[in-house]
Parts: sequence; structure tokens; C-alpha cells
Amino acid sequence: MIRVAIIGASGYTGAESIKILLQHSQAELTYLTALPEECGAVEDVFPQFKGRCALQIEPLDLDKLSELADVALCCLPHKVSMSFVPKLLDAGLKVIDFSADYRIKDVAVYEQYYVKHTDTENLKRAAFGLPELFREQIKGAKLVANPGCYPTGASLAIAPLLKEDLIETESVIVNAVTGTSGAGMKPSSKFHFPNMNENLFPYGIGNHRHMPEIEQIASDVAGKKVTVLFQPHVGPFDRGILSTVYCQPKKDISNEQLLKLYDDFCEAEPFVQVRKVAPAVKDVAGTNYCHIFVTNVKGRIVCFSVIDNLVKGATGQAIQNMNIVFGIEETMGLS
Amino acid sequence: MIRVAIIGASGYTGAESIKILLQHSQAELTYLTALPEECGAVEDVFPQFKGRCALQIEPLDLDKLSELADVALCCLPHKVSMSFVPKLLDAGLKVIDFSADYRIKDVAVYEQYYVKHTDTENLKRAAFGLPELFREQIKGAKLVANPGCYPTGASLAIAPLLKEDLIETESVIVNAVTGTSGAGMKPSSKFHFPNMNENLFPYGIGNHRHMPEIEQIASDVAGKKVTVLFQPHVGPFDRGILSTVYCQPKKDISNEQLLKLYDDFCEAEPFVQVRKVAPAVKDVAGTNYCHIFVTNVKGRIVCFSVIDNLVKGATGQAIQNMNIVFGIEETMGLS
Amino acid sequence: MIRVAIIGASGYTGAESIKILLQHSQAELTYLTALPEECGAVEDVFPQFKGRCALQIEPLDLDKLSELADVALCCLPHKVSMSFVPKLLDAGLKVIDFSADYRIKDVAVYEQYYVKHTDTENLKRAAFGLPELFREQIKGAKLVANPGCYPTGASLAIAPLLKEDLIETESVIVNAVTGTSGAGMKPSSKFHFPNMNENLFPYGIGNHRHMPEIEQIASDVAGKKVTVLFQPHVGPFDRGILSTVYCQPKKDISNEQLLKLYDDFCEAEPFVQVRKVAPAVKDVAGTNYCHIFVTNVKGRIVCFSVIDNLVKGATGQAIQNMNIVFGIEETMGLS
Amino acid sequence: MIRVAIIGASGYTGAESIKILLQHSQAELTYLTALPEECGAVEDVFPQFKGRCALQIEPLDLDKLSELADVALCCLPHKVSMSFVPKLLDAGLKVIDFSADYRIKDVAVYEQYYVKHTDTENLKRAAFGLPELFREQIKGAKLVANPGCYPTGASLAIAPLLKEDLIETESVIVNAVTGTSGAGMKPSSKFHFPNMNENLFPYGIGNHRHMPEIEQIASDVAGKKVTVLFQPHVGPFDRGILSTVYCQPKKDISNEQLLKLYDDFCEAEPFVQVRKVAPAVKDVAGTNYCHIFVTNVKGRIVCFSVIDNLVKGATGQAIQNMNIVFGIEETMGLS
Repeated sequence: MIRVAIIGASGYTGAESIKILLQHSQAELTYLTALPEECGAVEDVFPQFKGRCALQIEPLDLDKLSELADVALCCLPHKVSMSFVPKLLDAGLKVIDFSADYRIKDVAVYEQYYVKHTDTENLKRAAFGLPELFREQIKGAKLVANPGCYPTGASLAIAPLLKEDLIETESVIVNAVTGTSGAGMKPSSKFHFPNMNENLFPYGIGNHRHMPEIEQIASDVAGKKVTVLFQPHVGPFDRGILSTVYCQPKKDISNEQLLKLYDDFCEAEPFVQVRKVAPAVKDVAGTNYCHIFVTNVKGRIVCFSVIDNLVKGATGQAIQNMNIVFGIEETMGLS
Repeated sequence: MIRVAIIGASGYTGAESIKILLQHSQAELTYLTALPEECGAVEDVFPQFKGRCALQIEPLDLDKLSELADVALCCLPHKVSMSFVPKLLDAGLKVIDFSADYRIKDVAVYEQYYVKHTDTENLKRAAFGLPELFREQIKGAKLVANPGCYPTGASLAIAPLLKEDLIETESVIVNAVTGTSGAGMKPSSKFHFPNMNENLFPYGIGNHRHMPEIEQIASDVAGKKVTVLFQPHVGPFDRGILSTVYCQPKKDISNEQLLKLYDDFCEAEPFVQVRKVAPAVKDVAGTNYCHIFVTNVKGRIVCFSVIDNLVKGATGQAIQNMNIVFGIEETMGLS
Repeated sequence: MIRVAIIGASGYTGAESIKILLQHSQAELTYLTALPEECGAVEDVFPQFKGRCALQIEPLDLDKLSELADVALCCLPHKVSMSFVPKLLDAGLKVIDFSADYRIKDVAVYEQYYVKHTDTENLKRAAFGLPELFREQIKGAKLVANPGCYPTGASLAIAPLLKEDLIETESVIVNAVTGTSGAGMKPSSKFHFPNMNENLFPYGIGNHRHMPEIEQIASDVAGKKVTVLFQPHVGPFDRGILSTVYCQPKKDISNEQLLKLYDDFCEAEPFVQVRKVAPAVKDVAGTNYCHIFVTNVKGRIVCFSVIDNLVKGATGQAIQNMNIVFGIEETMGLS
Repeated sequence: MIRVAIIGASGYTGAESIKILLQHSQAELTYLTALPEECGAVEDVFPQFKGRCALQIEPLDLDKLSELADVALCCLPHKVSMSFVPKLLDAGLKVIDFSADYRIKDVAVYEQYYVKHTDTENLKRAAFGLPELFREQIKGAKLVANPGCYPTGASLAIAPLLKEDLIETESVIVNAVTGTSGAGMKPSSKFHFPNMNENLFPYGIGNHRHMPEIEQIASDVAGKKVTVLFQPHVGPFDRGILSTVYCQPKKDISNEQLLKLYDDFCEAEPFVQVRKVAPAVKDVAGTNYCHIFVTNVKGRIVCFSVIDNLVKGATGQAIQNMNIVFGIEETMGLS
């Protein structure tokens, strides 16, 4: 049994991690930590686990962690994460990190969008945890940077096109709409129910932190620089991201060829499904699946992808990465 | 033109007051105040009024208020309200107060549920602003205590039964579900969208502050002490309160007799409508109406009423009270 | 492995059954049937199962059923169900029936609320599938009548009080609010999104079919006739039922005694959790759990229970029953 | 007083028309018609008007119409509309038509997206009712084609850019998300609450009927052919359309210049507001306003506009058109 710790277990990704691990037959939760003021019995912090999980969420004790766990799901925010990850690695654990701290390989870009980077050594070694695109790197990695939710959905939508060099690299527009759980557990005016309900709005215009992450993945896949205009929106639902991606083909490619291309790409992928009609976010809610539909419209290729932002966009993908790192069945606990 | 000031204009009731007064042909907004940190142009505080209202929300200046307004809609929270209302009255204004401070006539009861009362003089003189039950008191009043949202819906549902002494006075159970706007504008964990969405829960069990208010109204109407078990719940929608009221009839009364009783009671009321089928909260959303349906079920009388908590449960009723106080058409601005 | 067929697999309970059985380690789906016009690959009927379930939904063939399955989850509507269940039993299968056809033991009551009963022989032999109250009957039963969603939530909320004869048997009022999935998959005006959204309303006033079912369970538990005023409502969310139950105690019982009573009752129950604060429907969404809180309010006992209407209120409970019938771990596939 | 008839009054646009006209001080509802099976007292068809509107909805009688009304709001679906409009005109009424039948000037395009056109004579004479762009045509028109909801929001978002020839005419991508009321009152599986709730999906991929309408408006404004890739989506809310429009500027234009351009364009427009931050659909819900924000992002210009699809996207705009046709204050009844 893989013994799993969750660092920063008191948020939505923590809760989702507990939920998934409760049904994972080769991993078990052994240690949960949070800030002192957020500690307590799991069933008090998350009533949905009453009678299902007898663990406590405790302040982090590195010795205890080292003794009790083989791997840490590190659910801390950026900046905080890179101050803890080196210690977790030193304690002998594998780490799946949910923050942005080990995702952006170019330190200057990271520092432009976030803060000063304080752990560039581990950054170099971290694998980028999008298995469908970088599975080989993840195998045997000690530290995996779990991707952002938007970059996961957007990248899977266009990866086959980029891999085959079929689109203009400056033509990509990602228009995405997310559910509200992506905003995290801290109450705010924007996400106050009477404000967010019956509402929909754009945000992060021109400067969302997932833009350079999408560009990095796209460029890696294409083997050359790809620029992406990424525009996120938030809508009145809990879970899910719909990415509508517009790109300019280099030359004509029929819908049949597109379908074949995507089918070939996804054939061996357990969690990516190519659809023949447009997908809906509810089709994948609560699952680790990504559904994709791609078609020609008025001279452009339009790709649609849906994921659950808390599962394939966060915790499910982290467990998928954990499974790969430990060499067990990749779908364990996730299907 | 009645010149209207809103004291505490930066919350949901403030916004609703602006909206209603913009279409009131005999009243005009002249002065809006809020705490300094919540001030600014109306269109910046509430984008929905961009191009519709050129006023500023300013810190309260009593001299300016006295000069600019004939009446104040006082949208302050309890305790704060009773520290301002005496000044507003001294400044020569009529006051429609939205807080609980002037509603509960028994100071001991008020102090049990709220805080120490600091303005018992004005409390004695305040009219209770439920026009359908206390219209005569409201006419010419200087200070009107605008009722709570739950008490409005619950009291209208059972007033005809109490007036005619048809039900056991210890048998009344009010089971109510409100939308979320009743919680006000301040973000909190319970009303954080990913928590409140797809959710429904009871609260205020056994101790909600509207319980004694409902009992006071019911007792006034019945002319004797009435006790009420009041249980509120909150559900995932913006506006509306559904009250389902269970009572024990003293003797058999047919559904036809019930309908006649309610029709007679509501005949002259512009804002209370007796339905022949169960009402839905959406039937009255955005309006000052209360819809009621009443019927016998298994030896009890069950009354259903719906109102919009922000309109008939707050601002609409305040404007209705203002209209009565100033002797103009009661429905002005509201239909 | 228990081989499971789903009869009437094309609705919400069918989809939920597939979902649960996909993660059941001692049961496997072998045969799915529906009306001819609703047949097709599971992944076409329910896109959420794309890549997760390779089965077809086919028109029912009794020979094939007999050969392929040990047990049938019969998700047909009432009346239709009792025309098929005898054949399923004759085919040698155990049957967990989701309809009302085998729930109401008094044929006259059944026929008053539903239609003429055409299979009274099997009705007599059917076990009532509420494990927490009738587990012994279910063990070894050939036919289990899976309870209605409302009766499940309401009965669990008050069973300990009835068992100990602590409340007046004519005093029980069940005020319940359900999510919309209880209405099934067939579009209708009431459940059309722009009508149902932002809405809440009562229905089935005085005549809901679950009223006699709740009374039957309550009377069985109490060992004497119990009458219940049951008033359902529907609110704008997918899943969950909140039951708020009001009853008159025969004599004073403290909150501590109530908590002890419920704790004792639920101690050995895997799926019923006694809470110390009010539960919310979202606490149990997607799970087979029932959370209960009970307290004294103004001379009455008020019990709150929450369940997921599609899981503990339907499919989860059916699987729980199946597990009991086959003598395997009761929680298998459900936690 | 302008005497107004509503033809096809039993749908959402009919209800919205009644609501607006009840507060219009220079127009009064005199005649409401619908299919025989949808007739009845307004308060029975729409409970929200109980006590507010004493009219009946009746089967259409042209003589009565001619006698009772000066103008018809024709809320019929396409194809049906063009079979009635000639009769309404012959009856001497002005007509504001909500359908697509008189919007598309190119009959071949109309027939490609809809059906054979049967009233090309009136098509030629119809004014296109987007006042901000074609006000002069509307003045004095006998027949006004009220625009589609998407075309209204999308066109206003980019009109200033097109008018000044600032963008590449083949670069426009309109990504829009609508609320559900746009789907009309007829229940369907997609809009069944348990399916639509918590969901978001694209539709009309490559072939939505509003695409040629947007192109026609854009081309008219630009004075040359403009092509538009229009991709609509639907989300889980009642009202509102957010259009996110991406275009390629011909040359650099600063954000300050963009703001100035839009401010100049909208200065005299009562219902179009230029924002300095991104708008949200809730900012305009229930109003006839369109809020716009425009900015440069990564070499493209991105325009955001929000409207209420039932008001500025349908009924509000129709009343605005009616006001213009009759030469009264354009904002009457709408602010």
C-alpha cells in the first residue's frame, strides 16, 4: 500500500483527495496536515466524511510525515508550496505538488506572473504532470508539478494539432468558462452566492497566470514557440471547465481527418475521450475524464474540451500522476 | 415630490431601494449615505445603475440630510440603527427603519434576542409597518418599523385565521425557506457559492430572531397570546421566501370557507393575492406581492405564502409604508 | 461475482446504478435493458460513461436475462413493474424493485393511491428494503421493494422516537424539500430550467403517494397506527432531500437523551450518522449516507434528516439491499 | 396612449412584454392573442400577473385587433410570423416583429438558414430594429424586424471598430454564452432542469441562424463584407448573454483610443454603457442596457458585451423600437 499524506488538506482539493483515496485499493491516507486553525477531525472539517474517515487533520510535523508517508499531495498555494517542498523531498517523500511553483520552467516568466522563485534547483528536476503529454518524464520522478486546471483542458484540446504542426502557432485563442470551485474555499464578494448566482463574467483579462503555462505546454508539444490568447470566464456552477479553442489551420484538413488524428492520439489514453458531438461539462463532472470534440468552422478549427476542474484539473490528475510515479495501474482509484 | 434619503445605501436593500425609487413618479432620491469605505458614485458601487443614477453615496452629514430629504429609508443593521434614528427624527425627517430595533414592543424580549435597547422612547411611538394588518397606525407615523422578511410572509399567511379565532394558538408551526439575498452582502463561508450552490439547510434552530416578531404580530392580530414554532431554512436561489404554515383548527372549516375567508380579507389589499393552487416563489420574484394558498390536510390547515424577501420582505414594503405615511397612492412605484 | 441486470436502464436511476456498479468489486453489470426506442450503447445513451462501460442497452429478452444475471435491479415505473417482476422471478432472479408496486402491504391503500394491483401474491412475499429498520426480512428475500426517497429520509429521522414510543402518533408533520432529479428524466413544464431555476414550490398537497408509505413504515416501527402529515416541496438543485419533521413528545426528553437515543440506534448502522449540528443536503450528495440531527424546540421535537434522493433514496439503497440479499459486505460499492 | 396588441402572448417574450407595458406611461395593453389552447386570463397563464393585469389572452380576431390596437408586438416564431404580418399591416397596425422573417435582407441566405420566404415584399420595406445602428430607418417604419438576441449583443460590441474600419473583416470571432430563457417555453431534454443545471455546453456549431444575421449587421456597419465565426453556448442561468469578441486590428490602437472611440459612439445612446472594467451578465439582468468593455490582449482587440436576452435582446428593444416608431421618448417604460 502506498501511504499518502495530504499537506494542506483543509481546502477543496484536500477534500477531493480524501474522497478519491478512500476508494483507492493500493493507496491509503495516513497523514493529513493543515494550518493550526484549520485542524480537527476530518469529519468535523468536512461533514461529508462523517463515518467514512477517522483521521485527524494536524499541524505539519516533518518527522511524523517522514515516518508515516511515502508520498505527499502538496495542496498549498504558490509561494508557500516552494518553501515546504524541499523539506518534503528531504524527508524522503515523493511529492505531487498542486501549486504553480514547479510548473513554469522559465524562472523569469514565473517571476513575472507570480513571485521570486526560491527553489530553482527542484524546479529543474520537477516533471510536468500532464500524463497524456509527458508520461515518460513522470515515471520515476521525485517531484511532479501537477498542472493547472485551465492548462489541462486547453492543452489536451489542441495537442494533436500542435504535435502534427497543423496550425498557425500565433493563431490560438482559448476561450474558457470555469465553475466556481476553482476559486477555492475562501469567501469573497465575487463568489458570494447572491452575486455569483445567475451570473457569468470574464476575468484575468490579458494577464491570467495560466496563460504562460498553456504557452509552455503548447510550445513543448509543438517543438517551437506557440503563443496563446487565453481568456477565462466564470459561471454559476460548481465543477467543470469548458474550453473553446479557435485556431487557424495551415492547410485544409477535413473533419474526418481531424477525427482520425484525435482518435489515434487518444486511443491508448484511459482518460481522454474523443466525441462525435459537442461535449457538456456535466458529462465529466466528478470524473477524471476529458472529452474532446473538434471540427472545422468557417476556415478555422474549433476544439471543445471539458474536464472537471477539481478532478482531471487537480486531484484526479494528481492521483493519476502518483499512480504513474509508483508504477501501479494508472487508473487506480479513478474509474 | 417626496425627497428620499437612503441611510446605509451600499447593501442589497439599498440597491433595491434605488431601483424602486427610480421608477416612483412622486418620490425622488436626493441623498445616499454609507460608511466612508463604501462610498462612491452609485454607478461604481452598483454597476447595474450605470447611466441610470448620477448620485453619489456619501458619508452621512445630518445638516445635509435635513436640508435635502423629507424621509429616510434607514437600511442600517440593528443596534446601529437605534443610535441613528433619533438623530434622523430630530433632523425633521420621517423614518422608515429596516432594522429590528423598533419592531419588538416588549423591551425584555428585544434584549433577549438582540442587545440592550437604547431608544425605548421612540420604540413606543413606532408604528409596525405591515400595512395589511396595521395600516391605520402607519398613517401619519413619524417612525415606521419595517417588518422582517419572514414575519411578513408568515403573518400574512395566517392572519385571517387568527383574526377569526379559528386555530389553536399553540399549534402554529412555520416552516420557511428563504433565498440567499436575505443574508446580506457580506461574504461568508456558508454563502460562498461552491458551498451554498446545490445545497439546502436549516438554521436558527429554536432561536431565530424572527420567532418573537412573528409571535408579536400573531398575538396582536389574535388579540391573545399566540406561540409559534418557527423554523427557517436557506436554499440555492437569490430571492423569495416560501412559508409553509401548519395549524390546528378549533373546529372543522371547509376549503370553500377558507377560500372565502381569505378572499374577504384580501379583497381590498393591492399586494396580497389569494391563489386557488399552490404558489411558487418565482411567481412573486421582483414584485411587492404576497401570494397565498390555504387548504385542509389531514386534520390540519396548511397555509402557503410566497414573497420576494427583498421587496415585500424589505424595500417594497418600506416604499409601501412611505406612500402611506405621506398619504399618496399606496401602490406608487410598486406595480 | 454477482451478475447484475438493470431493467429500465435508461433513466436517472439506471445511470446511477451503472455508476455504482462500475466500482463494486463483487458485482458486475452483465445485462441492461430498456424500451426499444431508448436502447443503444451505454456511452451513447449516457455520455458520462464513454470509455468506462462497453455494454449495450437492449430490449428485454427473458432467456438472455435468465442466462446472464443473478439479480435484477428493476427500475420500471409502478404498474409496469408488477407486470414484469413475476417474469423476472420466474426466470430465477432475485429482484430489487424500485417502483411502488411491492411497497404498500395494504392492497386497498395501494389501489387508492396508484392503480389496481395485479400481483398480490408477490406483494405478500416482498421484503421492504429499508435495511436500518427491516434488515432481517431482507436477508434471503427473493424480492425486495426498494423504498421511496421521501419515506427513506423521513422514516430514518423519526424511527428511534417511534420505536421507544416517545411521541404522539397523530402529531407527526414531515416537511420535505427535494432536488429535481426525483422528477425523472422526462421533460415537463414545471422542470423546464427557466421555470424551475430560482424557484421553490410545494406540490402533492394532501395526496402525495409517499404519505401512505411513510405511515406504513412508521406504524410498523411503532407497532401501532401512526398518521403523518407529509408535505413535499421541490427546490432548484439536482440531488438531495431535506426532511424537517415536527412531532409532539409524550413527555419531556432532554436533548442529551435524544442524542443518546439516536446514537444507540445508529451505532451499528454504516450509513446513518447522527450529527450534533444541523445537516445540509450537500453533506450527503453523491453518497449513500443519511445524516440526522434532532432537538427540542418550543415543546416539540424537531428532527432533520438529509439523504441523496438518487443514492440512499434509490440506487444506493438498492445496492445495499442487494448486498444484504447476497450475504456480502453491506457497504460494498457504496463507501 | 399607444394601444398595443401582443400576438403570441403566451411565451416568455409575451410575459416580458406585459411586464414592461404595465409600467409604460404612454402605451397600454389592449389586446393579447395566442393559439386557442394557450388562451385564458393573463393571471392564469402567468401567475405573476395576478392582480396586476385583468386582460384575457384570446384567439386572434383581425377585426378586433384592427379596432383595438395601433401597434402589434408580433411574438410568433419564424415562418408563422410572415404568414400573419401582412394581415396585421393590412389591418392598419404598425408591427414590431420578433421573428427572423424580416431580418435577413438576402432572401437566399434567409432560405438557406430558415425556410422558403413567403413575404418578400414586406421584407424589403422592413426596418432593422437595432436603434443604436439604424435609428433613422426605424423612425416612421411600418414594420420593424426586431433583431435576434445574439446579434444585438455581438453587434454593439464591435460596431465602433467596424464603423472606423479598424479591424480585419475576416478576423471576427464571437464566442457567446446565453442563459436558458432564450430557448423559449417549450420543455426539452437539454433544458430539463436536472440536465441543464450545473452544466454548460456549446451548440449550433458552424450553423447557428444568428451567424448570417450578425454578418449582415456587421457588413452594413462596415460598408463592406464582414465574415464572422459565431459560436454560441448555453449556461445554467435564466437571463443574459455575454459576448466575448476577438478581432484583429489593422494597426495598433491603444486602450485609451479604444475607450475614447467607444465613449464617443455611445455618448448619446441611452442604453449602451461603456465600462472601464469587464461587465457581468447580472449587471444588466432585467434591464434594457448593454454594457461594453474593450481592450487589447496579445495583439488582438477583445470586446465584451452583456445584455439581458429577454429585454435588450428581445422585448425591451421591441418597446424601444415602438417608442421610436411613434416618436415618443425612446426610453419610455424602459428605465
